Amino acid sequence: MIPGSVTDVRVRYAETDQMGRAHHMAYVVWFELARTELMRHSGISYADMEKRGVLLPVVRLEVDYLKGVEYEDVVDIHTSVGDVRSRRVQFDYRVVARKGGVLVAEAMSVLICMNRDGRPRRLPDDVREILARLQALR
Amino acid sequence: MIPGSVTDVRVRYAETDQMGRAHHMAYVVWFELARTELMRHSGISYADMEKRGVLLPVVRLEVDYLKGVEYEDVVDIHTSVGDVRSRRVQFDYRVVARKGGVLVAEAMSVLICMNRDGRPRRLPDDVREILARLQALR
Amino acid sequence: MIPGSVTDVRVRYAETDQMGRAHHMAYVVWFELARTELMRHSGISYADMEKRGVLLPVVRLEVDYLKGVEYEDVVDIHTSVGDVRSRRVQFDYRVVARKGGVLVAEAMSVLICMNRDGRPRRLPDDVREILARLQALR
Amino acid sequence: MIPGSVTDVRVRYAETDQMGRAHHMAYVVWFELARTELMRHSGISYADMEKRGVLLPVVRLEVDYLKGVEYEDVVDIHTSVGDVRSRRVQFDYRVVARKGGVLVAEAMSVLICMNRDGRPRRLPDDVREILARLQALR
Repeated sequence: MIPGSVTDVRVRYAETDQMGRAHHMAYVVWFELARTELMRHSGISYADMEKRGVLLPVVRLEVDYLKGVEYEDVVDIHTSVGDVRSRRVQFDYRVVARKGGVLVAEAMSVLICMNRDGRPRRLPDDVREILARLQALR
Repeated sequence: MIPGSVTDVRVRYAETDQMGRAHHMAYVVWFELARTELMRHSGISYADMEKRGVLLPVVRLEVDYLKGVEYEDVVDIHTSVGDVRSRRVQFDYRVVARKGGVLVAEAMSVLICMNRDGRPRRLPDDVREILARLQALR
Repeated sequence: MIPGSVTDVRVRYAETDQMGRAHHMAYVVWFELARTELMRHSGISYADMEKRGVLLPVVRLEVDYLKGVEYEDVVDIHTSVGDVRSRRVQFDYRVVARKGGVLVAEAMSVLICMNRDGRPRRLPDDVREILARLQALR
Repeated sequence: MIPGSVTDVRVRYAETDQMGRAHHMAYVVWFELARTELMRHSGISYADMEKRGVLLPVVRLEVDYLKGVEYEDVVDIHTSVGDVRSRRVQFDYRVVARKGGVLVAEAMSVLICMNRDGRPRRLPDDVREILARLQALR
């Protein structure tokens, strides 16, 4: 298994809604958490990248919510690099409930690379190489 | 224009992130706001539906983020009913920045109808009729 | 009544928790919303201040939660300037449920003025004058 | 050290704001996380309590924000029971940045015990005993 490719999250009370489950918005935060953890374990600090003026905003998001999860449930987010281009990268996610091992959501997000002024730019070479290696490993 | 089909939101400071724009998670909350406002104006109180034991969780979400929006920007969310089935409904969203009239995001979400115990069920007849009428009007 | 001194907010679904009420965190966001709206109506754009390099982080927060509010409830947040010093300002808040006119929370927050590098600085003269005038009016 | 009395949190990107620090609202979520973790380690499952119809809403919150923390920073939240009465409990929090060991925030929150219908009630005996023991240990 690729280090950092599985991130666990325990559902926070503040993430529940009155349906008694984690609000669907919370998953979007977990995906971000999961992909930055994967990157960090692979040698890419997103915090440092931003300090270098390289931003990775999300331009596309798709989520399938298959089952609800509840307060204090632990979920494992399995993250992989789905595609890497010169200016964009796609991450894929599978969210599995620790209890029962049930798949509760599947998702993907596409991020593009841009400068601080908002103009698109190429991914830095070192970042792109690491992402390509992660993609090959999946 | 259908009453309630356009909802305006002013970007909250807490919704920004260190990129200096509204975090992509915030849009997901705005879509929820927009569709419940459309429903409320059309005579469907989601709060009341829940009290009757009818829940509408999101099962599918797709968002295209086209441009960023900043703190205090006002966006208009144009919401329409894309599809209505016996047990599910699709909403479509177009997010337009008030300043410049630029389209900043397009999205859709699919909600299914379920009972409080989590089992799928048919949309209540009155709700389905209203949604079908909204769909026809779009 | 001072323009902008009352801000209304409708409880968002995403702000509820499984207790079936607005999560206590949501109020903190509403206070921020309310004080920036009061400032904006009084001629202070917080967005512009930040562009000038003047930040106003919260350094103290006190909230008394008196009653819960539910999804779709509308609350009016009455905001006033409690105290103004050369480097800090205190805002006071009263949250009143539109339905029944019940006081649901009271709060205060203290903000200090700092530069982008984190060092404390004096409030800009024009900002301080406006805040002092708001305080006198309360 | 009391098991569960220190909870670590890594600042999430979604928790940052355009000031480039964790938004002051995020701390409120961390405190909730920290006290439920302390309770869980001490044998009180808040999730189970709620299923028994016993709720613990926050009625008072005080926070002093001493220094900002940034994206990916790790903070340790030191939590203790400050006071236990028949119908209420106070938790105290100290937030320490892992990097440098700097105190970044101090806070307290008071929770009351109520039934699902909103009426105040006594803390369950077993819960009160555990909280009293935690208080004695601090």
